[in-house]
Amino acid sequence: MSKTAIVEIFNDKFPIGETVTVNGWIRTRRDSKAGISFLAIYDGSCFDPIQAVVPSDLENYASDVLNLTAGCSVSVTGELVESPGKGQSFEIQATNVQVHGFVQDPDTYPMSAKRHSIEYLREHAHLRPRTNIIGAVTRVRNCLSHAIHNFFYEKGFNWISTPIITGSDCEGAGEMFRVSTLDLENLPKTEAGKVDYKQDFFGKETFMTVSGQLNAETYACALSNVYTFGPTFRAENSHTTRHLAEFWMVEPEIAFADLADAAQLAEDMLKYVFNAVLTERADDMAFFAQRVDKEAITRLEKMVSSEFVRMDYTEAIEILQNCGKKFEYDVEWGVDLQSEHERYLAEVHVGAPIILQNYPKDIKAFYMKLNEDGKTVAAMDVLAPGIGEIIGGSQREESLEALDKRIAEMDLNMDDYSWYRDLRKYGTVPHAGFGLGFERLVSYVTGVQNIRDVIAFPRSPGSADF
Amino acid sequence: MSKTAIVEIFNDKFPIGETVTVNGWIRTRRDSKAGISFLAIYDGSCFDPIQAVVPSDLENYASDVLNLTAGCSVSVTGELVESPGKGQSFEIQATNVQVHGFVQDPDTYPMSAKRHSIEYLREHAHLRPRTNIIGAVTRVRNCLSHAIHNFFYEKGFNWISTPIITGSDCEGAGEMFRVSTLDLENLPKTEAGKVDYKQDFFGKETFMTVSGQLNAETYACALSNVYTFGPTFRAENSHTTRHLAEFWMVEPEIAFADLADAAQLAEDMLKYVFNAVLTERADDMAFFAQRVDKEAITRLEKMVSSEFVRMDYTEAIEILQNCGKKFEYDVEWGVDLQSEHERYLAEVHVGAPIILQNYPKDIKAFYMKLNEDGKTVAAMDVLAPGIGEIIGGSQREESLEALDKRIAEMDLNMDDYSWYRDLRKYGTVPHAGFGLGFERLVSYVTGVQNIRDVIAFPRSPGSADF
Repeated sequence: MSKTAIVEIFNDKFPIGETVTVNGWIRTRRDSKAGISFLAIYDGSCFDPIQAVVPSDLENYASDVLNLTAGCSVSVTGELVESPGKGQSFEIQATNVQVHGFVQDPDTYPMSAKRHSIEYLREHAHLRPRTNIIGAVTRVRNCLSHAIHNFFYEKGFNWISTPIITGSDCEGAGEMFRVSTLDLENLPKTEAGKVDYKQDFFGKETFMTVSGQLNAETYACALSNVYTFGPTFRAENSHTTRHLAEFWMVEPEIAFADLADAAQLAEDMLKYVFNAVLTERADDMAFFAQRVDKEAITRLEKMVSSEFVRMDYTEAIEILQNCGKKFEYDVEWGVDLQSEHERYLAEVHVGAPIILQNYPKDIKAFYMKLNEDGKTVAAMDVLAPGIGEIIGGSQREESLEALDKRIAEMDLNMDDYSWYRDLRKYGTVPHAGFGLGFERLVSYVTGVQNIRDVIAFPRSPGSADF
Repeated sequence: MSKTAIVEIFNDKFPIGETVTVNGWIRTRRDSKAGISFLAIYDGSCFDPIQAVVPSDLENYASDVLNLTAGCSVSVTGELVESPGKGQSFEIQATNVQVHGFVQDPDTYPMSAKRHSIEYLREHAHLRPRTNIIGAVTRVRNCLSHAIHNFFYEKGFNWISTPIITGSDCEGAGEMFRVSTLDLENLPKTEAGKVDYKQDFFGKETFMTVSGQLNAETYACALSNVYTFGPTFRAENSHTTRHLAEFWMVEPEIAFADLADAAQLAEDMLKYVFNAVLTERADDMAFFAQRVDKEAITRLEKMVSSEFVRMDYTEAIEILQNCGKKFEYDVEWGVDLQSEHERYLAEVHVGAPIILQNYPKDIKAFYMKLNEDGKTVAAMDVLAPGIGEIIGGSQREESLEALDKRIAEMDLNMDDYSWYRDLRKYGTVPHAGFGLGFERLVSYVTGVQNIRDVIAFPRSPGSADF
């Protein structure tokens, strides 16, 4: 089957007069009184459909062409001509229209040409990629993913696939999903009457990972620069627009590095991927700016040209306390910042992305490096105007003595961390890293507010369809 | 902290005479009688360590340098000089050696400089990235992963992250892991006394995916060319060197395409990624050829320059029946081929990769397109000399009528497939795709036989450590 992607035509790969065949689906059909039909055909290779002009003297004009509706699949062959219409550079003078599949009962086709609500589309997640918005989200998502891989590859990072199934809740980052092959209707029991996990697939209790960080550290402490890019899971009963039970995370980890290095890496990475989207997906971004969020493009352009401001948590607290604004949640040294605070700092106070650093140790994880003040840890959050926290990271505690003290203070089980502690026993190095929620990034870039609409098949409480 | 990757030095990024600082770990230390120490330092950026020559007049020579052992972390600053030694182009005349971390009790350091068995290394999966072999595997794995993403990006494919948690065993590809947040010590029950999955996190039974294919088809039927690259799971009690409970799969899916298109895509993809490894990881491949499998490089070179032979299953059966060789498993039309058969065909009969096509429908999945003979389906396997099956794929049944017939014949539940059937109701198109087990690819490329050694933290029955 001849394969000409529509994007190739729009990118001037073929001269005027060339005969081409495009394969795709009908977006719209319009019939002129003069007995000509205009088909808008999309194939997913770019945002715009191409127009095919179909004369009524085609053999199957009455039988096929006049029955085409949104969603029908066709191969259209014809001569490439300059388009007299506005906005389109090329169109096809069709000499052959082959229909692969009609739409059964077009009146009830769930993706009919009329506008549908984003909630309605979510209920039809298997068909929504056929819409303009989800097509555009998918291409932007792909561009971001590829840019992330490229960024790290060019810098000599190795991609590490850290395990999805894990025997420990080492990070303590949240509620976890159990993984098991035990027969729940007939659970094996120990003599004490408890569930006998020795008989489970892995011979013990296992869960789905909440983060690959601790595992990634083992590779950073051998190969210097690594990153994960894989799915992570939270069994939280959250119904917000910002939470998913299953989402993808990017977690770089760098050795011989401190918090400032991690902050610089985060800034460089964000700018790199935003540049990639602005360059490579201008068509989709124009759509988002027009239909979803008029700031979609300018926001990214501003991020790319901004200096990210570094600010200490302690300074941020003072600013928030003295700014005269009334927040829903009060601010005092020691509290975790809420989205309203983060957004005030980034949007109002500095009007640029902020990297907030050195948080109170009591609101942060055990593995973060204790600062010399004994009160704060070398943690950072990247706060972006318009969304708040987009990246969280830290320098890791590289001293075995200090790490053990934190494990004990936080009442964690020392045995669970024996392998993690080995990294500090054997040639320990200063190292640091961060985590980026990939769907939050896609949401930020596209302006699509609900995170369920930027992943193909979202998983959330009560919802694991398709 | 100054960051010069060792690979940059070997790639001539710095002139002789330049002062550089490298950060890394000690592979070996050797002291000359003249009072000079030679440190071999690795940082994971390439296979070879760099040699630092440390004079005894350094302030911390006796206190630090003479105590360095394998695995200690250091930053070494000095002048870059031409190496008089064989095989090395550059070395560093150290003027400063800073030790970040010694190795506690070097005599019991699990990764001491002596040779360890691959099984021993597997038991120390958190430290084994420090070895030559696992470092090389990691870099080759990264190169392969990046080449796969590049191959598809250049061809206009969109990466789709299909769901990991799924509500259905649609492909019926094997035993699945259950995902649940129910309290196993106190399971909620229905009135009939069964486990009440309505109270589980997703409101129904959920499992970990065995394949993203069916989900990927929904995107191919809208965006034409897509692929997945993500983890998949099999709860099979397999203890072979070729099976993992958790592994990564690459599954492209192409619309307006038939089996021949999928076969060509598979051939092009393999050649592209093998070329990438031969070009970009020559150092690691030289190690594999020297220490692991002397055919490691020549095998790939041969694959890249071979025409993959297309052969029908029916012809293969005739060849196997008439070749005069006695196989462990007898061959007759209708049976699934064993590894011994596949390898005979690829290694002995044609001496090149084979794409075997058109298998009996009864040994293949319900979604594969029925051929006109009514007996075979448009399925394919790519058989590579030295390993056997490396890719499996098919053209998908695009006719709703034919698909429904297969679902009924195979006694599957029609309701489970309503969304999959919608793809055939609404603008159906011929489409095809294949699956590549990523770890099998890494194993094939490196010659490392046991698949547990080409993934960072392998999961298999009884084993989910770290």
